[in-house]
Amino acid sequence: MDAVQKANSGHPGTPMALAPLAYTIFTRFLRHNPENPQWPDRDRFILSAGHASMLQYALLHLTGYDLTLDDLKNFRQWESRTPGHPEHFLTPGVETTTGPLGQGFATGVGMAMAERFLAGRYNRIGHEVMNHHVYCICSDGDLMEGVANEAASIAGQNALGKLVYVYDDNRITIDGTTALSFDREDKAKRFDALGWHVQHVDDVEDLEALEEAIREARDEEERPSLVIVRSHIAYPAPNAIDTSAAHGAALGEDEVRAAKEAMGLDPDEHFAVPDEVYEHMDQKSRGRDLEGEWNARFRTWQSEFPELAEEWDYAWKGKPLPGYQEALPVWDASETEKLATRKAGAAVMNAFKGYAPTMIGGAADLVASTSTAFEGGGMFSPDHPGRNIAFGVREHGMGSAVNGMAVHGGMVRPYGSTFLIFSDYMRPAVRLSALMGIPAAWVFTHDSVALGEDGPTHQPVEHFMALRAIPNLTVIRPADANETSMAWRSTLEADGPVALLLTRQNVPVVDRSKFAPAEGALRGAYVLAEALGGADEPDAILVASGSEVAVALEARELLTGQGVNARVVSMPSWEIYDAQDQAYKDSVLPPSVEVRVSVEAGVPNGWERYVGFRGASIGIDRFGASAPGETVLEKLGITPENAANAVLALLGRGERVSEDEGTPAVEGTDPSEGHS
Amino acid sequence: MDAVQKANSGHPGTPMALAPLAYTIFTRFLRHNPENPQWPDRDRFILSAGHASMLQYALLHLTGYDLTLDDLKNFRQWESRTPGHPEHFLTPGVETTTGPLGQGFATGVGMAMAERFLAGRYNRIGHEVMNHHVYCICSDGDLMEGVANEAASIAGQNALGKLVYVYDDNRITIDGTTALSFDREDKAKRFDALGWHVQHVDDVEDLEALEEAIREARDEEERPSLVIVRSHIAYPAPNAIDTSAAHGAALGEDEVRAAKEAMGLDPDEHFAVPDEVYEHMDQKSRGRDLEGEWNARFRTWQSEFPELAEEWDYAWKGKPLPGYQEALPVWDASETEKLATRKAGAAVMNAFKGYAPTMIGGAADLVASTSTAFEGGGMFSPDHPGRNIAFGVREHGMGSAVNGMAVHGGMVRPYGSTFLIFSDYMRPAVRLSALMGIPAAWVFTHDSVALGEDGPTHQPVEHFMALRAIPNLTVIRPADANETSMAWRSTLEADGPVALLLTRQNVPVVDRSKFAPAEGALRGAYVLAEALGGADEPDAILVASGSEVAVALEARELLTGQGVNARVVSMPSWEIYDAQDQAYKDSVLPPSVEVRVSVEAGVPNGWERYVGFRGASIGIDRFGASAPGETVLEKLGITPENAANAVLALLGRGERVSEDEGTPAVEGTDPSEGHS
Repeated sequence: MDAVQKANSGHPGTPMALAPLAYTIFTRFLRHNPENPQWPDRDRFILSAGHASMLQYALLHLTGYDLTLDDLKNFRQWESRTPGHPEHFLTPGVETTTGPLGQGFATGVGMAMAERFLAGRYNRIGHEVMNHHVYCICSDGDLMEGVANEAASIAGQNALGKLVYVYDDNRITIDGTTALSFDREDKAKRFDALGWHVQHVDDVEDLEALEEAIREARDEEERPSLVIVRSHIAYPAPNAIDTSAAHGAALGEDEVRAAKEAMGLDPDEHFAVPDEVYEHMDQKSRGRDLEGEWNARFRTWQSEFPELAEEWDYAWKGKPLPGYQEALPVWDASETEKLATRKAGAAVMNAFKGYAPTMIGGAADLVASTSTAFEGGGMFSPDHPGRNIAFGVREHGMGSAVNGMAVHGGMVRPYGSTFLIFSDYMRPAVRLSALMGIPAAWVFTHDSVALGEDGPTHQPVEHFMALRAIPNLTVIRPADANETSMAWRSTLEADGPVALLLTRQNVPVVDRSKFAPAEGALRGAYVLAEALGGADEPDAILVASGSEVAVALEARELLTGQGVNARVVSMPSWEIYDAQDQAYKDSVLPPSVEVRVSVEAGVPNGWERYVGFRGASIGIDRFGASAPGETVLEKLGITPENAANAVLALLGRGERVSEDEGTPAVEGTDPSEGHS
Repeated sequence: MDAVQKANSGHPGTPMALAPLAYTIFTRFLRHNPENPQWPDRDRFILSAGHASMLQYALLHLTGYDLTLDDLKNFRQWESRTPGHPEHFLTPGVETTTGPLGQGFATGVGMAMAERFLAGRYNRIGHEVMNHHVYCICSDGDLMEGVANEAASIAGQNALGKLVYVYDDNRITIDGTTALSFDREDKAKRFDALGWHVQHVDDVEDLEALEEAIREARDEEERPSLVIVRSHIAYPAPNAIDTSAAHGAALGEDEVRAAKEAMGLDPDEHFAVPDEVYEHMDQKSRGRDLEGEWNARFRTWQSEFPELAEEWDYAWKGKPLPGYQEALPVWDASETEKLATRKAGAAVMNAFKGYAPTMIGGAADLVASTSTAFEGGGMFSPDHPGRNIAFGVREHGMGSAVNGMAVHGGMVRPYGSTFLIFSDYMRPAVRLSALMGIPAAWVFTHDSVALGEDGPTHQPVEHFMALRAIPNLTVIRPADANETSMAWRSTLEADGPVALLLTRQNVPVVDRSKFAPAEGALRGAYVLAEALGGADEPDAILVASGSEVAVALEARELLTGQGVNARVVSMPSWEIYDAQDQAYKDSVLPPSVEVRVSVEAGVPNGWERYVGFRGASIGIDRFGASAPGETVLEKLGITPENAANAVLALLGRGERVSEDEGTPAVEGTDPSEGHS
């Protein structure tokens, strides 16, 4: 109350009402060590109702984490460690960023998947180094969000018995009571139907009933557990109780006084914590003991299984084992004329999989189409901690679960995969991965209208730009098979999340004997083909990404026929290129060359950054259409002729190349697959 | 089979398996008139499993719609009327675009809401002009998507008894069987928990059982209905049956032959439809009779209720009644110094609400925060067809439901509202509204980091650009109260969907006695403040949107103190400005003036389009932070001083304005609200 009142901003009602619940979890169940929030085998706690952040901050402070009373007084202020919503990267003891409803709920599901996988990989008979639970407090809003239902279904399907979720049934929403929008649904029955173990506690103030239900939930190993706890928002504030006003606004000085009086506290005292409360709440010695036992077990395990232990160290650093760079495949254009970058991606993943033994992931019921399976990795299931996860047609649940694996630790680059168009379905999860700066990999295939017949509902056009707009997200769209190897290398080495955009259709393998090596892709953009005719400075620059690099290369040849010396720049990643030093950037795109044409099969918005006022962009500023991919590209103007003519126009040349001087750069597609 | 085989692309299995189901719905239940797909009171049919489009095309063809056998032979080809997935704007009888899973399911929920609202508004005792059902065929994928669960919960909450949904329980997914990802969930129990009436049919070939179940579903008025029908994908193809291969790839000539032989058809005949089949399937005369009865009822109603009838005509044209333009409020800066544009938006909506009597909508449990309620409009509930809908914390379900209201017809501009950050949760629905070009209004408030304390999980930075990237979507971010009036006018008059981005915080009401009138906003961008000092041509141009226009105006004054004549361009909408003639565009942004600085509290990606290589952008190229809004703006550099100094730097001036010469343009915010 005091912190929210001091900030005159925040959500006081839920932290007040759920104090008994958080107390019970943090002091009677949660196996954690306030002195080491990074202890690998700790239980995870998630406040999915992130707006109640002060509840978590208060418990972290009282149980002995490095979070001071001054931090609490600094609630919601610039550069404080107690922001409006819990942020993974800011506060010790905060496991994941929450606030966007449903995200914490779904992230916990991924944490439990990571726990099962790591237990399967590292535990040995008599040596248990990975065995913990995931506790989560969630709200009406969490349960209403579709992502939570997707994640709950994934959890039920995979029998994630280590989930101990408590649902705060306070019957209040921002707009009033749940009678408006959430009272005809039987939540208990829904979760039962999803394969969960469901219990009820009638009064959050009944500590014994609470403890009994949570214990049973923890001990239930076959099914994830949901405990539905009735609470009264803002209790014991006499006037704010059970009001939606108490959800998102400070109570006001008078009501704070009244609440303190109701609790028998001195209303004139603020941020007052009696010493006996600190003593009663302190979990440091308990945590020291818990981690101590584990450390002893761990040391024995280390000495008995040194290779496993070495692998473990890399896993918890999030790094692949040495040698992965050399293992990445190289394609020779003389042997492989064309290959879809999604197929190249499959070859790359299976080449490095042994070097990233704790990298797991899967697709939203499209694994055959996105080509993202680890061969021989086995399926993740209730009986088997395999590397390949069948998320079902649940893109959003997949995204949040992958975030959970990444924040759990011990996992090298968990990944989620679907068609690029469906990145829209999981965008909040992708954004959270960027905000947290976690090592997730998003593999989005079928990355342009060239996917063909499935039509505009399946053809991304705005998605390159929409993803590039997300801060801290690296987007890489490789031009061919060898750039795909480099793209995966950049991904394995990146600090934060990476989105790989791969083609459905075959694209030419660039002849590296004629053109620059694919390693240039590691710098985001590079001169792939120098201007022909040996001009010191090119007359023009063609800059392209992904499958359109081949279009640019053909345009360059057409231009040579017109006596125009054009350079081709392959730009798989704006973010990586923008981070290079100015000298390198100027060497790729010399400021003096203003005749620049970008070629990309998407909305041109934004390419002005690289082509400027005097340049032009060949793109698709409309939705796609249902037809064979080659036809769609031609009809929408993604052709070498259009690119070449754009250059000629910018140079003020009268002549134009004609359609029959070139053929489209993109080959036909194999029979349609994928939903739909 | 023949059409998919001819295209060598598509999804044959489900159309084959569900033929008996579609036959039953189209010939025994659906009240439709193939000769007039626009009949207002027709039953709606949705193929949510849009990949099975050939099923719908076949039925439309056979029952007498304007869709020829040649159209079917043109399946999935350029400019055909039979695209890979059903498209609302292409094929007569297709009610809504489907394909992205879950969307058709959720769109139907909005159609039923429109039906209830229009029935409540226009039916009179003894005069029923609106009374129809919504039939939908959905798949495993639909039921797995979170958006479907959100929509199903909305439907149960609102007792939408006119929904007759059939779930194709074929136990096959793209990656294999549902055992992989969807067999531990009890779907029947889940929908029962969501308040639905659930039935089972064991065999889709059992026409009588099908008919009985669908009749019962149709007659159930208190609850939405789900009929779970067991089918076998690709039946009766002997080898393809029950295989996931049959989902998304043509069967192959041999299997097509085998299937035809199994059905006793001539395997050498393609696209063969016996006359007696046409006769048996033809619904034209039945449709003529059905619409005939309705037309008679409607004419009597028209004559008895002429005012209602006149309003009805406007409603079905999607146009507000005459006089709405004059009704829009005007603010005088001398009376109102500052006003949040969300608050101005509320005043505008309530000023025109009487002119758009069939405009309904609501928010995702944030109506108080987004200020989007129609005062006196009443709540939409099982008992009352009010204008204000409580969607709950279900942004995606809301978005798809609003699309359903828009495609239903009779509704003027249905709207959905939430915080701009949560537009990510409903992005697939926003994209569909743009693809279909339907008159939906998206009201997104709390549109920048200036919302303050809720922090980066709630502060949009990339969202302006991400929305502008969507083709056919008009994005409007008004600078003040009067531009908000103009923004709503543009919205009411737009052909397609519009996203309104409104501030949480107060922003100054621009003094129109000193600056240009707000009508300029109707052209997307306009010269708000001409350069001071009377220079024929400005030394520099400041271009800004929304709350940052006030920042630009202050920067202009600072520059005047430095002897720099700067023009301020207010650019609320890129899309509307880009659509103006070149002469107008050049008058706003003269090509000769290359010293241009954009000011917008979001990622700068894309502003290069208007400021070019020689310009600069004041933006936020990172995530926000939790602190009072004014502090966040200052710390992130959205200040008049930074904007002025950017201009001075571009002009090569040595001097700089200092921090104390101006104050930030954005005022503090009222106490935090909203989830969270």
